Order: sequence, then C-alpha cells, then structure tokens
Amino acid sequence: MIFRLGLQYLFPILEWGPRYSFQFLKADLISGIFIASVAIPHGIANQPPILGLYSSFVPPLVYAMMGSSRDVAVGTVGVGPLLMASMLGNKVKANETCLHLAFLATFFAGVFQALLGLLRLGFVVDFLSHATIVGFMGGAATVVCLQQLKGILGLDHFTHGTDIVSVMRSVVTQTHQWRWESGVMGCCFLSFLMLTKYFSKRRPKFFWVSAMAPLTSVILGSLLVYLIRADRHGVQVIGNLKKGLNPPSLSELPFGSPYLWTAIKAGIVTGIISAAEGIAVGRSFAMFNNYHIDGNKEMIAFGMMNIAGSFTSCYLTTGSSSRSEVNFNAGCKTAMSNIVMAMAVMITLLFLTPLLHYTPIVVLSSISIAAMLGLIDYDAAIHLWKVDKFDFIVCMTAYIGVGFGSVEIGLVLAVAISLLRMLLFVARPRTSVLGNIPNSKIYRSVDQYRAASPVPGFLILEIDAPICFANAGYLRERILRWIYEEEDKLKAAGESSLQYVIVAMGAVSNIDTSGISMLEEVKKSMERRELKLVLANPGGEVMKKMNKSKFIEVLGQEWIYLTVGEAVGACDFMLHTSNPKAMADDSSMV
Amino acid sequence: MIFRLGLQYLFPILEWGPRYSFQFLKADLISGIFIASVAIPHGIANQPPILGLYSSFVPPLVYAMMGSSRDVAVGTVGVGPLLMASMLGNKVKANETCLHLAFLATFFAGVFQALLGLLRLGFVVDFLSHATIVGFMGGAATVVCLQQLKGILGLDHFTHGTDIVSVMRSVVTQTHQWRWESGVMGCCFLSFLMLTKYFSKRRPKFFWVSAMAPLTSVILGSLLVYLIRADRHGVQVIGNLKKGLNPPSLSELPFGSPYLWTAIKAGIVTGIISAAEGIAVGRSFAMFNNYHIDGNKEMIAFGMMNIAGSFTSCYLTTGSSSRSEVNFNAGCKTAMSNIVMAMAVMITLLFLTPLLHYTPIVVLSSISIAAMLGLIDYDAAIHLWKVDKFDFIVCMTAYIGVGFGSVEIGLVLAVAISLLRMLLFVARPRTSVLGNIPNSKIYRSVDQYRAASPVPGFLILEIDAPICFANAGYLRERILRWIYEEEDKLKAAGESSLQYVIVAMGAVSNIDTSGISMLEEVKKSMERRELKLVLANPGGEVMKKMNKSKFIEVLGQEWIYLTVGEAVGACDFMLHTSNPKAMADDSSMV
Repeated sequence: MIFRLGLQYLFPILEWGPRYSFQFLKADLISGIFIASVAIPHGIANQPPILGLYSSFVPPLVYAMMGSSRDVAVGTVGVGPLLMASMLGNKVKANETCLHLAFLATFFAGVFQALLGLLRLGFVVDFLSHATIVGFMGGAATVVCLQQLKGILGLDHFTHGTDIVSVMRSVVTQTHQWRWESGVMGCCFLSFLMLTKYFSKRRPKFFWVSAMAPLTSVILGSLLVYLIRADRHGVQVIGNLKKGLNPPSLSELPFGSPYLWTAIKAGIVTGIISAAEGIAVGRSFAMFNNYHIDGNKEMIAFGMMNIAGSFTSCYLTTGSSSRSEVNFNAGCKTAMSNIVMAMAVMITLLFLTPLLHYTPIVVLSSISIAAMLGLIDYDAAIHLWKVDKFDFIVCMTAYIGVGFGSVEIGLVLAVAISLLRMLLFVARPRTSVLGNIPNSKIYRSVDQYRAASPVPGFLILEIDAPICFANAGYLRERILRWIYEEEDKLKAAGESSLQYVIVAMGAVSNIDTSGISMLEEVKKSMERRELKLVLANPGGEVMKKMNKSKFIEVLGQEWIYLTVGEAVGACDFMLHTSNPKAMADDSSMV
Repeated sequence: MIFRLGLQYLFPILEWGPRYSFQFLKADLISGIFIASVAIPHGIANQPPILGLYSSFVPPLVYAMMGSSRDVAVGTVGVGPLLMASMLGNKVKANETCLHLAFLATFFAGVFQALLGLLRLGFVVDFLSHATIVGFMGGAATVVCLQQLKGILGLDHFTHGTDIVSVMRSVVTQTHQWRWESGVMGCCFLSFLMLTKYFSKRRPKFFWVSAMAPLTSVILGSLLVYLIRADRHGVQVIGNLKKGLNPPSLSELPFGSPYLWTAIKAGIVTGIISAAEGIAVGRSFAMFNNYHIDGNKEMIAFGMMNIAGSFTSCYLTTGSSSRSEVNFNAGCKTAMSNIVMAMAVMITLLFLTPLLHYTPIVVLSSISIAAMLGLIDYDAAIHLWKVDKFDFIVCMTAYIGVGFGSVEIGLVLAVAISLLRMLLFVARPRTSVLGNIPNSKIYRSVDQYRAASPVPGFLILEIDAPICFANAGYLRERILRWIYEEEDKLKAAGESSLQYVIVAMGAVSNIDTSGISMLEEVKKSMERRELKLVLANPGGEVMKKMNKSKFIEVLGQEWIYLTVGEAVGACDFMLHTSNPKAMADDSSMV
C-alpha cells in the first residue's frame, strides 16, 4: 500500500492513468498535435537542428509519467542552449567536444534538480525572485535575438561570444557579407509571425493562428526555396537531417574531461534557472485551474527528464511557457498531450526529416526571434519600476549582467543585491514614533496616520524587525537619539519632561544575545536620565529569551504590558498616584 | 569656524586640551604610569620583544590626539601578532620578510579602517556579532596560550603553524627537549599572576595588585636569573635589546612584494577584527561613564594610528580591554594617560633596555598566558548557551574554526552562519493564528496566550516579516494550508464554515513585487473557496506599494482595517446584515 502510494507520488501517471477516458484522449490528442506543431519548428530552430527534435521526444515522455502538472508542455527553452554555450563555449572551442560537454552539463543539471527535489530543498529557487528571472530571461533573449541576425543576414562566420557587444561587433564588421535575399525573406517571415502573435493575443479564441504560424512558415519557406531553387542563390537551408530516433549518448558523456568542473558548474546554474522557470510556469497554470503543484516533486520530474535526456542526445529541457500556453488553450486534460507531442516528433524523426531539407535557416531564425521577443517582458519591467524601484534595479542588473557580461555575472549580481536588500530589512529596521488615535486605545505611527497624536510624558517607539547583532548597535543609537531629540524638543517648548519610553515589540519576531545586551544598555542609559523603559506586546520567542537572560528580572515584570494602550494607561495612572508599584502589579501581564 | 569644528572633530584633543587642568594631570599621570607598567612587560612578551615596546610608543600618541574615548588605552592586543602570523606566516617563511609584510599588513589595516570611518561605513563591524568575537578571541587566545608552552618549556624549535593541532604536535613530539628548570619557574610565575588576578577581581579596589604583577614578575625574574646566573643553566633570556626609539619603516614597506595581495587580505581581516574589538572596548566604557562614542570617528583614529604605526616599526594596535580597565580603575580623566604611558615607554626605550637583558623568556610566556586566559571568556559562552543556542553555535564555530582551521575559516564560517540566520528570519517567517483575548478587542497568538480564543467564522493570521521574493512562495503555501486545515477541522466538527480570512500586517515592514503577486494569488485562491481576504493594519510602506500595484483596487479599499478588532467587528456585522457594502464603508480606513 505504502509502496503503491510512493510510486503514485513519484509517477502521477499511475494515479490519473487508470481513470483516463476517451473524452480526455480526444482533448489531449488535439492539444498534443498543437504543441507538436509548435515544438517541431522551434526544435529545428536550435543549433544543430536535429537536437531540438530529439529534445522534444524523450523528455516529454518522462515528464508525462512523472510531472504533476497537467498543463505544462516541456521542451528546450529558447535561451537554454545560449546559457550552456555561455558557460561552456568560452572555454571549449571544438564543436564536437562542446556538444558532449553540453550533454554532460545537462546530466549534472538533472542530477542537481533531482537531488534538490529529493532532499526537499526545492525552495532554493525562491531565491531567484520574479524580478531576477524577468531581467535574466530578457537579457538572454536579447542576446539570442541578436545571434539570430547571423541566420537572417546569411552570415557564414560568427562570434562564439555570448554577450551583446561581441555579437553586435560580429554583425557590424561583416556588412559586406550581408545577403539581401536572406534579409528580405527574414523580415517578411518575422512580420508574419509577429502579426499572428499580435492577433492571437488580442483574440485569445484564435490562439491557434499564432500556434500554427511557425509550422506554416516552415512549410511556406521550404516550398519557396524548393520552387525557385533559392538555395543556389545565397539562401542557406538546413540540408540533410539524420533520419532515426535519438542516438544514445550515455557512453559519450565525457566524465574524464578536463572541463568536468566547468560542466558541473554550468549544470548547477542552468539547472536552477530552468527549474525556476519550469516551476513558475507550472504554478501559474495550477493557480489558474485551482490545483496544487508540489515544487519538490516537479524538481524530481525535471531532474529525471534531464538525466534521461542527457543519455539520449537531448539539450536541457524544462516546462516551456509558450508551449504550455498553447497546450492549455487547446484544452488539454492531462499530461497525455506531452505523449501525443512526443509521438508526433517521433514520426517526424522517423519519416519526415527529408522534407525539412529545404527549410531555409532564415525562417528558423525568424521563428527564434519571434519567440525570444516574447521573452523580453517590457510590461513586467515597467510594472516593477512603478511598484518597487529596487526590484527594477535587480531586474536591470540581471539584464545588463547577462547581456553585457555573462550568465554567471548577471545571476550572481542579481541574487547578491536581492539578498543584500533582505539583509538591510533586518540590519536597518524602521523605528517609528507612535501616537494615540483619538478616542481609542489604538497607537499608530505618527508619520503614517495624521490623526495619531503623541501622549505627553511618553515616548512610544515601534521596532519592526528581529533585534539581532546586525541591528543592535544601530537600534541603540536610534532609540537614544529619539529620546535626546524628544527631550530637547520638550525643553525648548518648556513642556513637562519625558517620564516613560514605551517600546512596542509586536513586530519583533526574535531577539538574540546582542539584542538583549542592547536593551540592557538602553535601559541603563535611560535610568541615568531618570526615564523608565516599558515594553509592550513582546512575542513568545522574545519573552523566552529575555526570561532566560534574566533581563525581565532586571527590567521588572511589571514593566511589560500586553498592548501599548495598557502600558500608557497604567503608567499614566502611576504618574498621578503616590504608590506606583502597587498599581502596576494589578494591570501587568507576563 | 567650520574649519575649527572639523579639526576638533578629527582631533578631540583640541577640544579638551584647552580645558585641561592640573587636577586632570595628576589623575592622568597616575593612570598613565599604571598602564605603562602593564604595557611594558606585555610589550616585551611579543615576538620580537622590542616591537611590543615600539607599538606602545607611537600609536598611543596618535590615539591621544584623535581618539574620542577618555578611558581607552591602546597597544597590541595579545592575539594580534598571531592573526598576522596566521594569515602571512603560512606563505612566507623568511623571518625578515615576514616582519616587513606584517608592517605592510598593518599599513593596509590602517588604511582600511580609516577609509571605513571616513566613508561612515563603520557599521560593518556590527556584522561581527558579540558571539563571533567571543568565539574568535577565545580560539585565538587558546592557540597563543599553547604557543607560549615554547617559552615555558624552554623549547628551541617550534612550528610556524597557527592551529591547535600543529602547536600541540610540536610540544608533544619534543618531550626530550623540555627543560624542567624553565617549566618550574614558569609554573611559579603563572600561579603568582593568576592569584593576583583572582584577588583583584574579587576586590576591585586592589586592582593595582594585578596591574603591578607583570612588572613585578619581570623584575623578580630578572633578578633571580642575574643572581643565580640561570641563563647559563638552560633558562633563556631576552638578551640584548636595541636601544633607541622606533626606527622608521616606511621605506621598507614591501609594496612590490609578490605577497602584496596576501598582505592586503590580512590587513582587511585583522583591521576589521581589531577595530571591532577596540570599538567594543570604547563603547562599554562610554556606556558606563555616560558619554557617547562615534564608531566612525574611532575607526578613523584607529586607522591613522595604525598607518603611523606601520611607518615606525609597530605591530597592529587597537584599544586593549585589559589596559583600558587598568586605566579606568586608576582614575584616568582624559586621553592624556596614553601620552604619559608613551613617555614612560620612551624612557624605557632610551635608557632602560639594558636592564631587560636578563629577563627570562619563561616569565614573559607566563605573562602572555595569564593575559590570554583572560580572553577565553567561558562565562560569556555559557551565557550564550543558556539564552540563545544559535548564538552559542556561532561562537563555537568561530572558536573551532580559528583554533583548528585558520583565522579566515573561523571568521568566514561564523559570519556566514550569522547572516544565514538573519536571512532565515526573513525567508521563513512565523505565521501565527490569532485569537481574541476575552472581554477586549485585542487579538494575540493562540500559541502564546492561552486565553486567546478563535472567533467562529474567522481565521486570523499574523505574518511577522517583510514579504518578499524569498518568503513569498513559502507564505502562499503556509497561508493556504492554514485555511485548508481550518476548513477540515470545522467540517469534521460540523461547525459553520469559514467566511473571512484576516491577515494582520502590523509586523510586515515592507513588501516587494513578488510579495504583492503572492497576495494576489492568495486572494484568487480564496475567492474560489468563497472566502474573503481582509487586511488589518498594513504599514505605510506596504500601503504605498499595494496602491501603486493596484492591489488595493483589486482587493477593495473597504477590506483594509486599522486593527484586527475593527476588521472582526465590521465583518461580523456584515455577516448578520443584508447590505454588507454600505456598512463596510463606514468603518473602513485607508
């Protein structure tokens, strides 16, 4: 029983398979054919073309068995090969070795993903924030777009560099090599693809228009070339594609290569990025269709899919957002649509590759560019700018880092400044002065609420972060400065002096030993100024620590209250009675 | 005027100098002589001895002019040379080069400290938590103690290693070289020093007993050796010390050395550590005597002092906790006591070095051990263990890292896990269910307050960290799981179902775009279950971001309340009326 549950956990197909009906099959067949019609032209738009087809055959089969999403369609993501090339290509020049290294990196990516999933560490992808991924994908997509100018302009030689500068230099320095026939054809097809995309976006019911456009372009392009023999007039074509299914590549994985470490590094980085992308795609559809996706389970599925892929000459694959959208729009019911797609690709590999002989490279480049332009998400970047400038900076850092530096630089910079911001949340917490909302016992920040007015004789401060070593020094200075300023202000105005300082601790989720020392020091400083420190609403964890460190004894139990309102009430009462201690005991709480 | 203020800021001596009185001088003279009597024996306990004296001459003069503390006495900290040796020595074997490299590292440490101070970045020392420093100092002191066994046992050859294992191996493998005369003498002097320490600790008035003990030991030891000519019977003595003041070393700083980078790294690491130590010493006395110390200004003073020191053959210096204590106990009034000490050291350098000829090494080793044992702060470690286990782990990591690995390993590990914990505060925030405290409008965690009872039809959740990319995924899952569990519980109990989910945002200090997407997704999920999302007490920053991202429009302004109590009240009212909207508008707040 437990064994069966375990198997069902790992292979969701065992769960939905038995309940599979003819109705489902009809829906999945249609959507499967739709995604195949997207997968095949996008597949051959890879370098070398045949690998794209291989990658749309084995991995979808693995995912169909292990994946927990019913909407995700898998395949190579457009920027995948670029990422690999960026991390491997600069070191390795020979093409053959590079390909084998890419399989090796795919293998390590798969192992890493599966391990993270098995160890339930899938949450590491959370550290790639949405802003990072938008910027990162945009940067990579920009580079891929520019690289496709090679195909559009019919260039023979091209840089191996993977940054905007070296790609543009390669394009601009070869103006005499540009072929206008190729360029014109590219522009026509690109316009066609973009127009269909625009149309489908405005009318979601006609999603199939843009879904079929790439395949239509391939067919039209091939016919055109065949009829006018344009391949003899400077239009490059794919040429002969090897017939047959994926050749095994397990024995060719170069584990003994001197670049082993480079491959591992590339595998880890691209594995994390592609998993983050794939899980985000799966989650967004799950959210829309009201079912749940377990990120760790998805990681395992992606991992196994890439391990299997690396054994069968496939590139790195993950859940593809454009294909999944087509899949969803076509009304898929289960992961069976992935199997249908794989079958369609299999038939293509077995019988139809000769038909692709005359497919012009320029059409494939147009298809790539159209897909990549979809990955450059201006709207998201504008939204980030509007809502949160810092997220926008993270996004642009990733974009510029990937576009002008390298994949690692972009990623490390973006993650580093994201983490730095998180540290700053804690290291430089906001302290605000609270005031009383008239006619209530509620106390709120005087900056945020105009109505809140300070209580004479009291200074009420709120701290909104855990108190720890990184902010203890800062908070000590900050609290004392609030007190000094308040006292100076009161003195200047000739008003009665400060008596109590109430620190609202509701938002202080934790405290460490440095934090407690800070409170002790603040208390001592206050005593020298004849001020009384009062704490309001400390959390459970904070109370426990303060108790263990005897700070509560030092402070006095009676100086801790449940709310700011109670603290003010009790202290106010004491101010006007002769025996403060007896009164305090009544209303105190610990 | 501004120029004078600026000068006074940089050179506090210009501020207190003109007001200096004869009363002050008398006090400072006494305390200066006291710290000199500590500084001289501790100084010659360094390797080579003369450098310790040099370091107690120039740096105190600089600090007296620039330092803002009146209690701090500066000098080499016992573990300073060890830190330098640990970071330089493993690479460089030749002694002469090593010394020049140490000056170079001191120079960079000074430059780095001064830069941090000038750029007002002194807060970086905050990231060395108290726990880190306790563990770090303890580990380094342990190694130094063990190294002193060389002197105690009269060994000639000794390891250059700076970890416990290689030092102990060096001691244990040379048992046949141990000299019993030296050992017995060492034990006697060590017992004497420890006894005086213990005595002075119990009776603070007799602080001078332990303060004079090192000098007494040196005099007694020298006399003993001289009288019985013990230097001819296996007791090593200092021998000839060069007479005269600090020789300039500026022209000898090996800027062109192949180890330049090593020196820079050592300078940065030791500079930060010693500055952290020095500032902590200064702050604790300032706190005690009720004056204020500006960390950045102190950094500048330490930096200039070390730059000047590196030009005049001095080791890395900082505020020394033991000397400052003597200084304070002897009743110092201003930094003039540092000048008095420097004068005393100058006289020693000019005239008294021949007297030190017969000082036995074993006495110096005893003095070092006695000082180092004071740096191993068991009590602090036990306190950490009692109050905060995690801080204890940080402390032990630093201790073990420094003791068994190296300075860098200990420091990097301790800082890394401290930061990791801070990240975890944010990445895995606590979400708690709130309940109503009977007979009040107060809502508190049901885990912390037994009295708090849940409100039927409501689920009230509190989040206590900024919502950002690192916790958005986690919080989404967590909130939805709370809802599922609550619904299951209610269903099982046959009670009325959930209607409202109130999220208390008082402790959410900030939100980023990932956080807002999370709220949107949670809201959608809830709507599908016919639940209403209500926010209570969002902060100013959070409101601003939610406004910009249009989330408030999506949520509806009327679903944001000032307190949980108001939210419950309003929703409860709506539950029992037919026209909820009209009612909500009355009591809502934005």
